[in-house]
Amino acid sequence: MMDQKVETQGIVIVGEEICQEVISRADAFSAVEAVFGAMAKGDAYNFPVVREAIGHADALYGFKGGFDKSGLTLGLKAGGYWPGNMEKGLTNHQSTVCLFDPDTGQLSALVGGNYLTALRTAASSSVSIAHLARKDAKVLGMVGAGHQSTFQLRAAAEQRDFEKVVAWNPHPDMLPRLQAVAEELGLAFEGVSQEELGAQADVIITITSAFEPLLMADWIKPGTHIACMGTDTKGKQEVDPVLFQRATVFADEIAQSISIGEAQHAVAQGLIAEGDIIPVGAVINGTHAGRASAEEITLFDGTGVGLQDLAVASVAARIARERGLVTSVTL
Amino acid sequence: MMDQKVETQGIVIVGEEICQEVISRADAFSAVEAVFGAMAKGDAYNFPVVREAIGHADALYGFKGGFDKSGLTLGLKAGGYWPGNMEKGLTNHQSTVCLFDPDTGQLSALVGGNYLTALRTAASSSVSIAHLARKDAKVLGMVGAGHQSTFQLRAAAEQRDFEKVVAWNPHPDMLPRLQAVAEELGLAFEGVSQEELGAQADVIITITSAFEPLLMADWIKPGTHIACMGTDTKGKQEVDPVLFQRATVFADEIAQSISIGEAQHAVAQGLIAEGDIIPVGAVINGTHAGRASAEEITLFDGTGVGLQDLAVASVAARIARERGLVTSVTL
Repeated sequence: MMDQKVETQGIVIVGEEICQEVISRADAFSAVEAVFGAMAKGDAYNFPVVREAIGHADALYGFKGGFDKSGLTLGLKAGGYWPGNMEKGLTNHQSTVCLFDPDTGQLSALVGGNYLTALRTAASSSVSIAHLARKDAKVLGMVGAGHQSTFQLRAAAEQRDFEKVVAWNPHPDMLPRLQAVAEELGLAFEGVSQEELGAQADVIITITSAFEPLLMADWIKPGTHIACMGTDTKGKQEVDPVLFQRATVFADEIAQSISIGEAQHAVAQGLIAEGDIIPVGAVINGTHAGRASAEEITLFDGTGVGLQDLAVASVAARIARERGLVTSVTL
Repeated sequence: MMDQKVETQGIVIVGEEICQEVISRADAFSAVEAVFGAMAKGDAYNFPVVREAIGHADALYGFKGGFDKSGLTLGLKAGGYWPGNMEKGLTNHQSTVCLFDPDTGQLSALVGGNYLTALRTAASSSVSIAHLARKDAKVLGMVGAGHQSTFQLRAAAEQRDFEKVVAWNPHPDMLPRLQAVAEELGLAFEGVSQEELGAQADVIITITSAFEPLLMADWIKPGTHIACMGTDTKGKQEVDPVLFQRATVFADEIAQSISIGEAQHAVAQGLIAEGDIIPVGAVINGTHAGRASAEEITLFDGTGVGLQDLAVASVAARIARERGLVTSVTL
């Protein structure tokens, strides 16, 4: 009775545990660096982001998709934020990556997205540090000490010969976790005020869920590189918008930077324009020189794009497949 | 070294073959009818559609997502149209449905979307026939004779005591396939001109990829119900826009109907306004009376929404799980 031809397709399943086993920070760095470069060349682009407050369980849910023609990576990350998960023993952020074969449109891999999201977000700030921070940077400032901050710290620590971490968090009782990671990495650690953090740090990573400036422009010393990683929604904010006037500003994706990223406030206040923001991929590709002097303040607005997720998921799936660690199913 | 807790989640895999085995036309009808009703009540909504010409393999790719609070169905259909697939032995339309647990955001099911798409599209026009066509309809007109037309015919034939099918297709050599299905269902079959089709048919389904009107308003007799099922993109068109002035117009989703559905042309030409279109769910829910007289022409604009896909996929996953037919994986 059915006249539909059945076509089976092989899909590899790469779970959270396997992602942790197969993909290193170096892999994530290379994947994110390559896709930022491809974006700046026009070889890769992100689709419009869908993000919905679904009116159930206070959840935010949506999709971030994209296509990288150079890496032949197509797909999406689906998931979101479920604030009640913690009490169920689950993390509040939940996501899954679906990779599709760009030659046929068939699903090719299903990859757990939770660990990868942490890893790709850390890779993003570390790529910006690698390409924009002063080579002689010694002090790393961490604003925020949540779960994600430890990933940022580990990735950043590999980019420069840091000697010390200075950190500030709205809840100081969360600092010991970050301190433990710093000490594991052989770095001195000091909890400081926000102003003191600006005075000491050569590189700063902000990774909070703040809705107001935590660092004022006057606190930031010449030559600092700041990676603002926490702002991914309208209304969120981590630094003084005036800093955007004083700094040379880079972003993962300009369209997202000015709409839901840290730059939204500086642009809304007329302090900078869209055209003042440089895609970090241009520095990666060598079409922009990057840092111009030892005194320049560089600011990276890392908003988080779907192509980062696809890039690291694609690497995880490839390595897992090579090592025979994947389950395979057909649809 | 990793401080990320691993959380496994059980995901059921429901392949194309199992979908064909477990879900009936009656199941699809009930699921689509229920979700159209939920949409009209405001209990279910579709997310913005992402649809991208990716610049590779001439493919159109994207996501249709939504959330049905009454049915607790959350997720998306991802996939698209790959025109070169046919020569690889694959169907050009490829899609996969991902269902998420609305309480936690975790992926709960992965369901093959190809067969379900055909089934839910057929269910949509049959729901419109059940609620809007005259009870004494005897002649079914089919405009289009492609793969999907046989699904529409089978589903429509179950809604009224049809005696005959009249059909037209731009390529008449495709009619025999449709004729074979009509005869299997015990219905007389006649290939006719477009004008003759209008003169004979009590119910018409258009299911083509046309970009111009195939049926003129003057050809349609009083009392006809027309389901326009082929228009899902800007520029596509199947019927004379003047017909929208003469008919009472219903749609699966009004926002989509006026932007990428059949109504786009009538609205653009000022023949009708958005407010003239009635959600078919209002008829299902009993808040609109539906057909007002035996002479009224009713037109249903079936644009195809993500919630239809989620509804049928959810039923397929439930039945497959109950019958022990699913594979299960963890992420």
